[in-house]
Formats: sequence, C-alpha cells, structure tokens
Amino acid sequence: MFQVRTDLALESKEKFDKDNVEIKGVRVEEEQVSQEIHITRVYIDTENGARTMGKPRGSYITLEAMNMLEEDESYHREVSEELAKIVRTMMPKKKQDMSVLIVGLGNRKVTPDALGPNVVDNIMITRHIVREFGKYALENPKVKIVSAIVPGVMAQTGMESSEIISGVIAETKPDLVVVVDALAARSVRRLNRTIQITDTGINPGSGVGNHRHAINKESVGVPVIAIGIPTVVDAATIVSDTMNELITEMNRSQTLNHVGNALSGLDDIEKHELARELLSPNLNAMFVTPKDIDEAVKRLSYTVSEGLNLAFS
Amino acid sequence: MFQVRTDLALESKEKFDKDNVEIKGVRVEEEQVSQEIHITRVYIDTENGARTMGKPRGSYITLEAMNMLEEDESYHREVSEELAKIVRTMMPKKKQDMSVLIVGLGNRKVTPDALGPNVVDNIMITRHIVREFGKYALENPKVKIVSAIVPGVMAQTGMESSEIISGVIAETKPDLVVVVDALAARSVRRLNRTIQITDTGINPGSGVGNHRHAINKESVGVPVIAIGIPTVVDAATIVSDTMNELITEMNRSQTLNHVGNALSGLDDIEKHELARELLSPNLNAMFVTPKDIDEAVKRLSYTVSEGLNLAFS
Amino acid sequence: MFQVRTDLALESKEKFDKDNVEIKGVRVEEEQVSQEIHITRVYIDTENGARTMGKPRGSYITLEAMNMLEEDESYHREVSEELAKIVRTMMPKKKQDMSVLIVGLGNRKVTPDALGPNVVDNIMITRHIVREFGKYALENPKVKIVSAIVPGVMAQTGMESSEIISGVIAETKPDLVVVVDALAARSVRRLNRTIQITDTGINPGSGVGNHRHAINKESVGVPVIAIGIPTVVDAATIVSDTMNELITEMNRSQTLNHVGNALSGLDDIEKHELARELLSPNLNAMFVTPKDIDEAVKRLSYTVSEGLNLAFS
Amino acid sequence: MFQVRTDLALESKEKFDKDNVEIKGVRVEEEQVSQEIHITRVYIDTENGARTMGKPRGSYITLEAMNMLEEDESYHREVSEELAKIVRTMMPKKKQDMSVLIVGLGNRKVTPDALGPNVVDNIMITRHIVREFGKYALENPKVKIVSAIVPGVMAQTGMESSEIISGVIAETKPDLVVVVDALAARSVRRLNRTIQITDTGINPGSGVGNHRHAINKESVGVPVIAIGIPTVVDAATIVSDTMNELITEMNRSQTLNHVGNALSGLDDIEKHELARELLSPNLNAMFVTPKDIDEAVKRLSYTVSEGLNLAFS
Repeated sequence: MFQVRTDLALESKEKFDKDNVEIKGVRVEEEQVSQEIHITRVYIDTENGARTMGKPRGSYITLEAMNMLEEDESYHREVSEELAKIVRTMMPKKKQDMSVLIVGLGNRKVTPDALGPNVVDNIMITRHIVREFGKYALENPKVKIVSAIVPGVMAQTGMESSEIISGVIAETKPDLVVVVDALAARSVRRLNRTIQITDTGINPGSGVGNHRHAINKESVGVPVIAIGIPTVVDAATIVSDTMNELITEMNRSQTLNHVGNALSGLDDIEKHELARELLSPNLNAMFVTPKDIDEAVKRLSYTVSEGLNLAFS
Repeated sequence: MFQVRTDLALESKEKFDKDNVEIKGVRVEEEQVSQEIHITRVYIDTENGARTMGKPRGSYITLEAMNMLEEDESYHREVSEELAKIVRTMMPKKKQDMSVLIVGLGNRKVTPDALGPNVVDNIMITRHIVREFGKYALENPKVKIVSAIVPGVMAQTGMESSEIISGVIAETKPDLVVVVDALAARSVRRLNRTIQITDTGINPGSGVGNHRHAINKESVGVPVIAIGIPTVVDAATIVSDTMNELITEMNRSQTLNHVGNALSGLDDIEKHELARELLSPNLNAMFVTPKDIDEAVKRLSYTVSEGLNLAFS
Repeated sequence: MFQVRTDLALESKEKFDKDNVEIKGVRVEEEQVSQEIHITRVYIDTENGARTMGKPRGSYITLEAMNMLEEDESYHREVSEELAKIVRTMMPKKKQDMSVLIVGLGNRKVTPDALGPNVVDNIMITRHIVREFGKYALENPKVKIVSAIVPGVMAQTGMESSEIISGVIAETKPDLVVVVDALAARSVRRLNRTIQITDTGINPGSGVGNHRHAINKESVGVPVIAIGIPTVVDAATIVSDTMNELITEMNRSQTLNHVGNALSGLDDIEKHELARELLSPNLNAMFVTPKDIDEAVKRLSYTVSEGLNLAFS
Repeated sequence: MFQVRTDLALESKEKFDKDNVEIKGVRVEEEQVSQEIHITRVYIDTENGARTMGKPRGSYITLEAMNMLEEDESYHREVSEELAKIVRTMMPKKKQDMSVLIVGLGNRKVTPDALGPNVVDNIMITRHIVREFGKYALENPKVKIVSAIVPGVMAQTGMESSEIISGVIAETKPDLVVVVDALAARSVRRLNRTIQITDTGINPGSGVGNHRHAINKESVGVPVIAIGIPTVVDAATIVSDTMNELITEMNRSQTLNHVGNALSGLDDIEKHELARELLSPNLNAMFVTPKDIDEAVKRLSYTVSEGLNLAFS
C-alpha cells in the first residue's frame, strides 16, 4: 500500500514471493549451513531483474543467524568463518600481494550507524608494515596488504563518502575495496541478525544515512564488496507496514471484514493520498532501532572484523 | 485506541484537552516568554489529579523552543537563562554553602540516551576545590558546592541507577539532587525541542531506558529536581498513534467514512485484540529517533549544562 | 639519590636487592610459569616490613609477561588464565551466591588512565539478571553475582572515588570488591607488561591520578583485591632515575671516574638541593607514557576482563 | 649535549639566542597584543636560515597565552580572535567562493594527540550545504566553503596521512588546506599554552606521532597553513635537557664546580657515548604530558575551532 524501503535483496525478493510473482532474471538458492546459520543467495542476472528488484545486477548473499545477539563466542566464530568463506568467493583471483582497502561507512556518533567505523577499529592493518619492512615482517607472509579508512558522514566532512574514497583509491591503488555499512531493513525481526554480502558495492539511497552516490566498480574502478547489517528500520516503513497488516487483518477477521473490504476498495490514488496525510513528514528523517543497540553493534562489529581478518589472512 | 506513553506532563494534559475533559486537581499556566520560547506550567495539586494524569503531584514546567536545533548561540543562551530561572525557583531556600549533586542518567553509548552523561561532561564541578582550599579559592565564592555522577545503566553495572545514587547521597549528603535524563515523548514534533523541569524527580517507567525505581524526595531523602528532554518516541507509540490518526481521518473523509465508522464501531476489547495482533512484540524494545540525533544531543546538552552552571553560580 | 615512586611492590623490593639489603618481614617467591610468564610473590608479613617497603602488609603478586603487547590471542588467553587463578586464591571462601563489585578506577578520557574503565566495559554483568530472574536464568548457574561501576575522577565528579564506592558498597553489600587501576612504575621497561594483584586494595598516593584515600578492607568493610598494570612512569622519576644512572656510570667508567667520585662525595643535603633545582616543579604533574598507549590499553583491558570473567564464572 | 627536538620555530630560535649566535636569514618580531597575549613572528627568509634552523623557509607565528588553561570564556574568545586574524593574513587573496579543507591530524584515541580530530568536531562545515542549495542557503553568504577530514594515524589506516589528504585534495580541489596538529615542544612550560601558525605546512618528523611525509604546497599543490599546539615533550628531550641543566648547574655552583669541569672536559664523542648509554632506547617511543591533558585538549580544541570558524566566516 505505502512505499517501503529495504536494503536487503532478500526482503525485496520476499515481497514478490508473498504475491506469488516470479521474477525473470532473478535466481534464489537456499542453504542451511548449520542448525543456526541459514544462507540465501539471490542472483540478479539481467537488467530486467535489476529493474524489478530495484537493485543492480550481481550477487546478494544473506547470512541469517538468529542467535547472533547471544554472547556465545564459539557461535560468533562460526558466523565469522562463514562470512570469510563468502568474501573469499567474491575476491578477485590474484595470487599474491593483493591489496585491500576496507571502508567503514557511517556515523561513529549515532549508535546504529557506527557499525562500519567499529569494524575498522578491529581490522588487522598491514599495509604500513609491508611497505616499511616487506611482507616477511609479518607473522604470516600470506596476509593481504590491508589498509582501512573511516570517511565520516557528510554533516561532519562536507564531502560525500564517495568523494573521499575515490580520492584515497586513486592515491593508494588497492586491488579490492570492501565497504562495511549499517543498513535499513523492512522488518524489525531482521535487525542485528542478518549479514548481507554483495559484489555490487554501495548504491544510492542505501545505508542508515542514505548514501547519495554509488561506491562500486563503475564509480571507483576496482571491485567493491559491500558487507551490511540492518540495524534500523525507517520510521515511515514501520508505520506503513503496520497499516498494511491492519488491512490484511481486516480482510481476514470476521468482525473487521467489512472494514478491510472498504479499505481494499480504495484505488491507488486514494491510498497514496491517505498515506501522505497520515505519515508525518518528520518521519522521513527518523529511524527505529532497538534499545540495546549499543551491545548489538559492539558484538556484530567484532564478528564482522574477525570475518574480514580471517578472509585476508 | 492503543496505549501510548509519554514522559511529558504537557502531553498527558493535551490528551484530555483534545477530548474536552477537565481534570480536577490539575492547573495549567501558559506564558510566551519571547518570540521563540513558550513556557507551560502544569501543576498537579491533588492525589486525584495525579491518578488521572498518571504522574505524581508536583510542578511540571515545560520550556518549548522551536528553534532549539539551530546553531544560533545567542538563542541557546536565552534558553539556558530561562532554564536557570526555573531551576532557581525550585531550589530549596538555603542561604549559603548549598551543595548540589547532579546526576546524568542514561546510556552514554546509545546516542539519544546520552543526554544526561553529556550534560555532566560540561558541568562546573566545585566540591573538591571547596573541600581542599575553601570556597574563596573559587573565582566566585557564591558558587554552589557542585558534584556530579554518571551512574551508567543496568546492563553495564548490574545495579539500578537508584541504588548507586542512594549510596552516593548517603555518603556525600548533598542538599539538592538534580537528575538529567533523556525522555520519551508521544509526538515526534516535540523531540529535541522541549525541556521539562519538575520537582517530582524520576519515577518508574520514565526515561529512554524505562527506569524501574524512583529517584525522588521520598526515596533518597533530599529534594530532587528532574530535567528531561524528549529524544525518542516509543516505536509502539508511533505505530498506534498513526493508527488512531488513520481512524480519525476515516471518520472525517468522505471516501473513507464507512470504514471509519466500522472501526469506531469496534468495542474496546476488540480494539485491544486488534492492537495486540498488529503490534509486533519486538516493537516494545524499540524506539524512534531522528537521524541527526548526534548533533541534537550535542547541542542540547550544552544548553542544559550552561543552564545548570548559571543556576548554581 | 632523588625520590622515586613506584606502585609495584616488586620494584620497591628490587631497590633493596640492588643494595644487597635484606628486609625483615618481607618474603619473596619466584615462579616461571611458562616460557613467557614469570610470577613473583612478595609477602609483607610484619608492620616493620610494611614501613620499610612503604606499602601495607599483605600479598603482592606480580605477573610479568614480556610479550603481553603482541597480538597473539592464545598468549593473552594464557595470561588471563593465570590472572584468574591468582584472583581465585585471594577470594573469600564462600560456597554460593557470592557477589562481587568490580570497580574501574581512573579517567576514561586520559588514555593511559583508562585501563580500569575499559576493563569494566567487557565484564560479564550478572547481578541484575539474577535479581530479576534467579540464577538459573544464567547459562552457568555457578557464575558469581557480578556488578560493576566506573566512578570517574575527582575533577569530573567533585568526589573522591572512595566516597562513591563506599556509598555503593553500603547500598548493594557485595561480598568482595575488585578494583582495577592503571599504575605508575619506576621503570619504562615494565610498562604494559606487568600485572600486580594484591589483597591490600588501593592505598593513598597510588595510581596514575594519585588516589588520596584508601579503598581497602578497613575503609569499606569488605575484602578488596586490587589489580593494576603500570602504564606510566612519573616524569620526575624518569629524570631522577636517569641522573642516578649517570652517577653510577660515572663511577664505573674510566674516563668519568673522577666526576662520579665528586658527585658521590656530595652529602645528602647537597644532593637534595641539586635535585630541587634541576627538577622543574611542572614535572610533578606530568607522566611519561608510550606513543602506542592506545593499542596497549585496549589489549590489556581485554586480557584483564577475560581473567575476571574466568575467575567469576 | 644531547639531541633535542622541538616543533616550535620559537624554541629553535631561542637555542641560538642563548648562545648569543645571530642567524643570517632569520628575522624575529615580537608584539605584546594584550596583557595576556604575546605574539612572536619568526621569518625564515633564506635557504641558509632554513638549514640552520632545521625548518623550511616561511613564516612561523607563535601566540603565547599564559592563561590559556583557565576556564575564562572571554579570554579564550580573545585568543580565538587573534588566531583568526593571523590565519586571515596567510590566506590566499581570492575574493569569493574560496574553499578550505580543514585536516585534523593525530590519533583521536591518544589524549594529547587528539587535538586535531577534536578541532574538526567543532568546525562549521558548509561545503555540502553550498553544493546542495547554493550559498544563499547559509545565514551568512560570505562564509567560505568549508570541508574537513580526520584521516587517522598509520597504525589505524595503514596509510600515511599525506596519502589520504592528497587523494581527497585531488578529488575535491580546495583552494586552501588548514592542517591542525598536536606538537612536541622542548620545554614543559610551553605545553598547552602556545599556538604556532605557519604557512609552511606539515614537515617530516613533526607532530606527536612524527609524521613521515610532508603536507605542504609542494606536495599537495595548494597552500597549506599548519596550526599546532605543543601537548607533549619527547621523553628523551626531557631527560637530556635535565642533564644539560645538571652540567650548567655544576659549572656555576661552588660545590660542584670540579664535577662540571670534568664533564665539560669530555670531548663530543665521549659525550655521545654517555648519552647513548644513559638514554634507554625505550624512551624514543615515549612522551611526557600533563595529567590534566584531557581538560587542556578539550579547552584548546574549542579555542582553535572558534578561531577557524571566525576566520572563515
């Protein structure tokens, strides 16, 4: 009924599944890796599929782990290892001396948007050591040449993240860029429990702070893997989703059936008018997040850093 | 229709105004202090008024300043001065050597809940100087004896804030306690634009993190002034409020009139059942906050610190 | 020659060893736990020993681990396990439901003094869960009832840390207090490589910020274990130590022998006069610390938190 | 006798003054701006002067304000205004639409090195607003187009600060770069009381973390103003300086005269040998800083941000 937003390809796909619509040019594979970890691979193969899904062509791999919020360390290790495996499959094949720039997008001072910066805090940085002493100075000489940056957000820098990153890439010429970012999901159930890894990079309108410019192979000239975890739901999305459920419920319920019918009878223009009137314009600049978001972001950022440290060592 | 929550006495009162209900034992005074600042004083005089309002007896003074988010320094100064005036009227009358303990409630690591801790960061602390060198060591010997503490939240300490504060009060015996906290409002329009000052202290269920124990004169033995700024709306509140507006809209609109009638025709039990089904249980532990909450909390915490520094010097 | 300061009993003892002086009432035991970890136990048994050492009677156990700055995780785990063992030997024997308050002393905003607060950030807090749901709500019901507090420093609170802690102890009645603090060593070689565990608590004049009041069994009424890591050397200490080495060197060296003799010939009053003239009074409020203190404190605080989490689970 | 280090041109000059040596190609002007503020202008005019001073040709303006640590706000305002005046004289003359990139060098997580990052936190950023809405969206349309970045340090990024900044400059093409950095002084008396403003940018070996690459007009292609405040003294400097004073004292003193003579009698090789033996190699990676460095850096960073905000509005 109302427009909703999600950064997860999985959720975009589910919308169509619900309506039993099959999308040409989009393939889905499911895998239950262990009792706890479920992986869904969404491949958008054609331009047509991309248009329908509202996301660029490429692979979107979603790792769902319902207990990712628990403190169990061995469990987090398992998630990190699966993440590392997926990242390795997306890495360019270059036998040696591969260099990687890891970018922590987002705002360190807004808790649910601090995921990217926090991940960078725990990355094993090696580029300066290799350049100074050679790779045999490292305990493990197979380690990739890793650098990292936290560009900050536009209100702090006056610059698009994409401008800063393009400049740093042009100057330091990494073979691969990995961008870590907090995402917006459609469903509160997915918050802090889902990791999306994609080879399509960052695209306009994604992220907690709604990036305005792309950071992908086309825009920066090297492959870009984006790793994201949904930590917020847009406030407008949560409200409109609840309304949709209200209508669904009305259609189902005995008591409310006549109400639902009436609402369903509205045409699209009437529906949009209703939406516009109800959704406070203030909601556009608001998000919904859990009260314990500090603990969640702290734990998740360790899990992702460890996954990246494994992938690049 | 659904239960909503607000920490602002002003909003509790408005609910009744909307329904044209007058509440016995509650008085309201309005004052337009300047073009920008509006003050509303809600006095709950009787136990009956307290029950109806769902808030303890006492004074609730709300300072609304629609441009409190702007960067204009002189404007913030005006707000700080009004805040200082209000705090002074609530202070116990003690001619000299009054000692004040300022408590910054909330979670420093969750941006909209960091208001209290951030305010404490900019308070002029004098107690240790006066105890070491006497009050003539201070530039202005009229300054109050000020101490401050940031107790942290239960997930970090394992203790209720009220336990820590009671212990510190018993040990250091201040004449007055001022508690600063981030609040939950009902309306997104009020976020970061409203300061509530009350002589009733902190009461169970208030604050972003829902305090479970009171911090007031009864519980700690000295007068407690609470200063709060709403920085979040409960996610459940925002959803249910929008539903209420949906129904209101339906009743008003030509097209939707028959729908609204149908919904209005539900009895209270049916309404609550509907609510329970629609509102995801996850929403109870979620809040809604603006994306620029970092800048808002930074600016507001300066304004409050400056107000307290003025009040106690 | 000049006054030096150390918070490590091990270093106080070494001073006497150097001069081949045996101290009555002080026993020392050494143990090489593994290739990497060396433990020294200093027991001050008598009041006489305490006077000579300038430290209260009790056990001072020092864990030295020369590679504690390396990133090797398994190595840190070993240190944490040894730390846990030592803490367990100092714990009061109480079969069940033992409650522990962990205190992170120091200033979170001064990097080498942030050890205590950082340790608390990673402690597994259980008290609020046990009180709410009973101990069977915990995965491991043998876990101790753990609470924690970061009191801040006097310039931030206006209160002595000891006042805040006494208040919290009186209110929450733990069976044991563990205080974690950054210390001052005499030798730069010991910085960030040594953990001292003592059953004597915190005593006046110790710590980076020079605590002015004791936190020990006498002052707070329950046993107090103090865990400290030297992260700074007093600036005055480093200067005067180098001078002493200059004189020693002079005495030894062929070329400089006559100089050393001359200096050694000064009587004590002349030496103190010289010291006073040379040591800038500014140095008293200064400390020396390594440039990579941020990484050191980050790693060490994990090691200590893990040790405490092991000890209390 | 031993090698000392200072980032302040003023202190380099003083060394020669002490020895009554005049340096060709170096001019000095002094000005007592007010009772509190003293300005010294050192101009290195020739390559010869640059070699002697060990600093590149250019202007080095030092603003000394002995009470810069006090909390008096009006006093800080005066310092900010003087700083703004000096920055304006160094700015390129471009009538309109001048764009400035402000760089906060240093390590946010090491308190005395956090000056640069903290200054950036309070800069009024305008570039994104001007690009989105035009300059008339600003309250004051004369405001410069200001962007800012905190590049982090090499251990965090694996990149030289100069690499990141060069990349960002190439991408965003500012007309002027202002770099803010914490410096090392020779004398503890100067710490946190002195601001150096120079048109020579950042040069290898300067700063708390010893930058290895230049950031100046030659290296980045646009004018670079560097603003620095000494917050540390190198540990080796403080030790060797005290030794020098010891020797001076010995030469002067009756009692010690024969000692001083003996030491003075050492030839240069002997002196260096002595130095190498005495100065622990650990000291090279250590600095000396005041215990209240958190408060000092907080206050000073406000003063500098305000100065820059004034200069560019």
